[in-house]
Amino acid sequence: MAEELILLDEWLSMFGMRARIALAEKGIKYEYKEEDLENKSQMLLKMNPIHKKIPVLIHKGKPISESIIIVEYIDEVWKDKVPFLPSDPYQKAQARFWADFVNKKVGDVGGRIWAGKRDEIELAKKELIEGLKELENVLGDQPYFGGDTFGFVDIALIPFYSWFYTYEKLCNFKVEEECEKLIVWAKNCKQKESVSKSIADEKEVYDFVVNYRKRFELD
Amino acid sequence: MAEELILLDEWLSMFGMRARIALAEKGIKYEYKEEDLENKSQMLLKMNPIHKKIPVLIHKGKPISESIIIVEYIDEVWKDKVPFLPSDPYQKAQARFWADFVNKKVGDVGGRIWAGKRDEIELAKKELIEGLKELENVLGDQPYFGGDTFGFVDIALIPFYSWFYTYEKLCNFKVEEECEKLIVWAKNCKQKESVSKSIADEKEVYDFVVNYRKRFELD
Repeated sequence: MAEELILLDEWLSMFGMRARIALAEKGIKYEYKEEDLENKSQMLLKMNPIHKKIPVLIHKGKPISESIIIVEYIDEVWKDKVPFLPSDPYQKAQARFWADFVNKKVGDVGGRIWAGKRDEIELAKKELIEGLKELENVLGDQPYFGGDTFGFVDIALIPFYSWFYTYEKLCNFKVEEECEKLIVWAKNCKQKESVSKSIADEKEVYDFVVNYRKRFELD
Repeated sequence: MAEELILLDEWLSMFGMRARIALAEKGIKYEYKEEDLENKSQMLLKMNPIHKKIPVLIHKGKPISESIIIVEYIDEVWKDKVPFLPSDPYQKAQARFWADFVNKKVGDVGGRIWAGKRDEIELAKKELIEGLKELENVLGDQPYFGGDTFGFVDIALIPFYSWFYTYEKLCNFKVEEECEKLIVWAKNCKQKESVSKSIADEKEVYDFVVNYRKRFELD
């Protein structure tokens, strides 16, 4: 099995974490290969020649790239176990909409915080909080974005929880004070072993970012 | 039927054209509502309160937003007629990857051309040509990205053909000289009535852009 399924990944990548969580949820064994993104492996360059980015899932020698597409692929191939997406087309479209929203309003905006210059951070902070509030609004009083079960949007968003501490330190705010329910949701998710064993430690993420920002003189 | 299915759209939107082509391919009747994006309708603001963008497909009163998600929704609801996506999960992941590539490397980059300042255009031109060459490379000698049949990636990309003339005029190049096979493909697609009746006239697009650029003093 191991040689049939390989994940090229980097430990702190929120996109990589999505693939790890999806694989863990389905109970699938795979070989994890940590990439050094400053010195990309020949395998990565060969398997994702277009974007040259992790994560890449290699299944029986064939590569799948882009984290949301990987999660959908895993859901479709191992469809008998805990579906991530609802079967109803409208509900499915809604889940895809919110996963896309997470990419744009948490992923892209979060990137402008941790890798942004000081003057960009304040604007991005405002957008991030607005995005998180929209997400909290959609979540409502449900335990998960998937309703009673952990699903597609949960997988898309929960890796960013590892990064909240970094956003908070760089932007001087507390997600919990802005979006209390979102933290309750994140704690629900973290009780799942598929999540807790797949996501990076928030302090280690922050240490990485502090070093990165020093090195590229961003502060 | 008409009141059950409404498309909020704008005539020159490449994203709106995707939805129009998908509906035409499936032979579905719908009510088309042209939006004035400088004076958005209450219906648009209510149906897409998050992004406030067209296209929005409203099916039995429920809205679906984001063009690629709309195309997938149409494919899933009217699944008996001409499938857009292959049934094999790997092939499906590849189609999703290339549709996403079109969004990033043609849609986003194209936006930096038609709505960009002069100094941004040269850089964007280079990226656009690179992106189109990647797409041509994937197309190979097939009649369509979907192989022998018109499919998901074809629907994602063909609306930009209406915009090629605008990119060419603003960037001073010819797509045909760079990517001959892509023009053969586009002409194949345009022979389909679902495409020819759904896409905007290239000269009208260009006139719109010229006026837009004058108004916002982009040149």
